[in-house]
Amino acid sequence: MGKLICAGLGPGDPDLMSVKAHRAVTSSKHIAFFRKKNRHGMARRIVDGLLREDAVEYAMEYPVTTEIPLSDPGYNASLAPFYDDWAARLLKLSQDEPGEDIVVLCEGDPFFYGSFMHLYTRLRDKMEIDVIPAITGMSGCWTQTGEPITWGDDVMTVLMGTLSEDDLAQRISDSDAIVVMKTGQNIPKIRKALQRAGKYEDAWIVKRGTMPDQEMSKLSELDCDENPYFAIILVHGQGRRP
Amino acid sequence: MGKLICAGLGPGDPDLMSVKAHRAVTSSKHIAFFRKKNRHGMARRIVDGLLREDAVEYAMEYPVTTEIPLSDPGYNASLAPFYDDWAARLLKLSQDEPGEDIVVLCEGDPFFYGSFMHLYTRLRDKMEIDVIPAITGMSGCWTQTGEPITWGDDVMTVLMGTLSEDDLAQRISDSDAIVVMKTGQNIPKIRKALQRAGKYEDAWIVKRGTMPDQEMSKLSELDCDENPYFAIILVHGQGRRP
Repeated sequence: MGKLICAGLGPGDPDLMSVKAHRAVTSSKHIAFFRKKNRHGMARRIVDGLLREDAVEYAMEYPVTTEIPLSDPGYNASLAPFYDDWAARLLKLSQDEPGEDIVVLCEGDPFFYGSFMHLYTRLRDKMEIDVIPAITGMSGCWTQTGEPITWGDDVMTVLMGTLSEDDLAQRISDSDAIVVMKTGQNIPKIRKALQRAGKYEDAWIVKRGTMPDQEMSKLSELDCDENPYFAIILVHGQGRRP
Repeated sequence: MGKLICAGLGPGDPDLMSVKAHRAVTSSKHIAFFRKKNRHGMARRIVDGLLREDAVEYAMEYPVTTEIPLSDPGYNASLAPFYDDWAARLLKLSQDEPGEDIVVLCEGDPFFYGSFMHLYTRLRDKMEIDVIPAITGMSGCWTQTGEPITWGDDVMTVLMGTLSEDDLAQRISDSDAIVVMKTGQNIPKIRKALQRAGKYEDAWIVKRGTMPDQEMSKLSELDCDENPYFAIILVHGQGRRP
């Protein structure tokens, strides 16, 4: 039976894919990836031009993304059958074509807030799965700012913009280096939390880091609060430096 | 004038190097890397067999590593001239051989607690520098455990084992997912902090993650507290999972 390979693709620049992921992507016949309905898909976009000519593609389209709040029980209720369905389809595909690996493309690092883990937990006891780690989106973004994110004994905290303003402000205040992901509609709240923690002037926002259409600025210099889901907000640590 | 390229090498498996770093490592004449005195050097070991036949190697040997406590003023006093000296030597090398790039090898991701940043801050205004991000050691380690590190809205905190037991215990208690680096001689203290936070039984330790001699176990099942500097302790988050 073929393996299921989750190829972490990294932050966006195809050159930042690992040698191992690049090999899986360019040599495998079956290529699956998540995407929002009616979109090209971030992961698919990263591998443009790299797939085999005879590759068969499987677009796994989320039934919901941001239309339902994450806190709504309907969110999980809608996603669980979606993951169940695709787990069953990929398992059947590997049984039907036992000699072929199936590659699932994932932007970023698969085991770091990735969607693949929901297929992984459903399939890990049923087939061989190889997860290829990758450069995280946040690593791509902090490298692009041209400043190290952590020094010496800095404490770094990774936060989701979906947390409450109080929680964000407290945790931002308590940390040396900060990464905020899932920013999207939460930018106004994140701004306030950074202001309360006295770190607003130090914060950067990087959109589509390492991609051709990357945008980057101090958060305080950003006029518009409409941002893509993939925007990451960073505050650099200031620890010991010989 | 040639560029200074910091090639992040990732967690240890050479296949996990990015396509871009692999290209720099295999095509460049001048290869510099940090190492502890009288050791082969972790970064150098990752590129064994990949360098050009005519590559010229520059081992940048730390004057101190763990012999002096980090809190001792002697630590920075000893390291600052070391970085000054190597910054000057690499700059001169690039002036003497203007057509050649110089690659500095870095295990892990260079801007995430890396040593390269101390050359970077000294040289950024004097020559062109290209920093290639990489898969962090922690990503390599959590992927090896076979469990996603973060789910949904989990808060992840990265801590250095050099922090006080009280500080560690408080921060471990307040986070969903935890990464502790710089473990080495700090393992007994980290154990106690995890116990106080009620997370000791959930903690993993991964030594030399993704390397051929990797070792991994529950921290509670590890008898001996003598561990290499590169051991990473992990507690996986348990957030929302549809």
